[in-house]
Amino acid sequence: MAVPDSVIEVEDVEAAAARIAGYVRVTPVLRPGPGAFGSDLDLVLKLELFQHTGSFKPRGAFNRILANEVPPAGVIAASGGNHAAAVAHAASVLALPAEIHVPEAAPAIKLERLARYPVDVRRSGDLYDDAQVACDRRAAETGALVCHPYDLPEVLAGHGTLARELEDQAPEVDTVLAAAGGGGLIGGVASWYRGRAKVVAVEPETSRCLGAALDAGEPVDVTVAGLASDALGVRRVGDWPFAAAQAWVNEAVTVSDDAIVAAQRALWQDVRLVVEPGGAAALAALLAGAYVPDPDERVAVLVCGANTDPRSVT
Amino acid sequence: MAVPDSVIEVEDVEAAAARIAGYVRVTPVLRPGPGAFGSDLDLVLKLELFQHTGSFKPRGAFNRILANEVPPAGVIAASGGNHAAAVAHAASVLALPAEIHVPEAAPAIKLERLARYPVDVRRSGDLYDDAQVACDRRAAETGALVCHPYDLPEVLAGHGTLARELEDQAPEVDTVLAAAGGGGLIGGVASWYRGRAKVVAVEPETSRCLGAALDAGEPVDVTVAGLASDALGVRRVGDWPFAAAQAWVNEAVTVSDDAIVAAQRALWQDVRLVVEPGGAAALAALLAGAYVPDPDERVAVLVCGANTDPRSVT
Repeated sequence: MAVPDSVIEVEDVEAAAARIAGYVRVTPVLRPGPGAFGSDLDLVLKLELFQHTGSFKPRGAFNRILANEVPPAGVIAASGGNHAAAVAHAASVLALPAEIHVPEAAPAIKLERLARYPVDVRRSGDLYDDAQVACDRRAAETGALVCHPYDLPEVLAGHGTLARELEDQAPEVDTVLAAAGGGGLIGGVASWYRGRAKVVAVEPETSRCLGAALDAGEPVDVTVAGLASDALGVRRVGDWPFAAAQAWVNEAVTVSDDAIVAAQRALWQDVRLVVEPGGAAALAALLAGAYVPDPDERVAVLVCGANTDPRSVT
Repeated sequence: MAVPDSVIEVEDVEAAAARIAGYVRVTPVLRPGPGAFGSDLDLVLKLELFQHTGSFKPRGAFNRILANEVPPAGVIAASGGNHAAAVAHAASVLALPAEIHVPEAAPAIKLERLARYPVDVRRSGDLYDDAQVACDRRAAETGALVCHPYDLPEVLAGHGTLARELEDQAPEVDTVLAAAGGGGLIGGVASWYRGRAKVVAVEPETSRCLGAALDAGEPVDVTVAGLASDALGVRRVGDWPFAAAQAWVNEAVTVSDDAIVAAQRALWQDVRLVVEPGGAAALAALLAGAYVPDPDERVAVLVCGANTDPRSVT
């Protein structure tokens, strides 16, 4: 796939918001107040982990499906878990057949959620990228609509609705911290804000395909490992997200697995949220000092996934 | 204590809201949408479990303390856990000495939270009521300000701010379901709505001091047992809460321990919330059919505590 000439427009996010309204939850924000997480910052937490299926992914999945004519073979996707559940959920709500390719690396709790839906689940390869290869091969045979987890304009536009909702709920925000895997979320968020707020991408130091691409000036392959790799472990950032990130992501920082675990524990201790590693990465960047805001900077943190074993956060 | 001639006024709740602003979190609401919990109701969940210390209790505790002159001995309270943490938190924020009497029945996770604060914690008796006796005896010796968990007008007014906040966030609500233990929360909520919304009290069938009092026409002693007894297990409803409930609680229903556990699991499965038994009782009444709303009734459920071992909800 070539780097696209263009990025998605604000109108694409507006159209997505209209299209998916009624299918996705408006998720709340929480201002935990000074003292939480041992910080005096006036943080805004966007609680997108309460979205249907426990992650932000339904926004992009519903928009991809609703914006297209779906062939008789239905929809097909590959995913380490959260996108899989989102596509399965959307297909189930819309009464469409769905085939989902999951890698061996998908955690049990995500497979359990997937098993609640009447979809054809196939184990394909070790990591997400392997499952995507299998998915694309099958799609060529069946003609099903491919719901790529991050490299489609409809997915960016769908995820951009999260930023649109956040700006409505917290217009005062100067800076938004969001995790980046393949880049669908950060690309959508950046495409919405377009510089009106500073957008900071947070990646695990063991899986930093966006940061490496920004360094190189083009998407490049990276190795993938670490605690959050089921959600953020992607070998090469998507072309659509990369174009958006080049334009409007101000900074890409990394966090260690230890910092992610510490953020998960802090989220449980201080606000009683159970957050998966990928969902806690953005806060980890603040708590570990990977991103240091000015004292009066108003920072929003996207808390974007809850699909983890609750005992892992205590 | 005699049944008071009067109940708290709307102005008391307004004054409490002004007094405690800045000390308590504005907690969000979530509309999970049709399908959640296998229900087609358009529910509103008030996520008060994200309050400081993981329960609604700081609202009443801060209001009690801030509305009074605190003697040199500081504050004193008895509690099965959530009120203890709230008083400890408030005392810590306000730099006051605090002595807290906890019963043996207090769960480990609540004692762990309490241990984070620099307060004098004493184990006193088996159940909450025993600890309250010890607390009152000590207060007579030391002169400390007693922060009773539910039978004080300042506590009802503080908890009433939760209803004030909810009405602001969800003015369309017809009916509010709230758990009742000693009655501080339900009394505050009822005193705010004053019939503008239907208020339904939910008690464990094994600890129903409010329902028994409403049946008898006056507070009476009941036995106390069951899963939620650390939060809702009170032998006799407070006089202030009883007066408010007689005036403005439309119905008192009961739920079984099994129904509470099912509600805890549903809250985790469908919205990724970890909720303690007492905090899940109100939703349990809906899911178990103890309260059956009309199809178009707009129902709000107070989800009011998160202090439980996360592994208990899966």
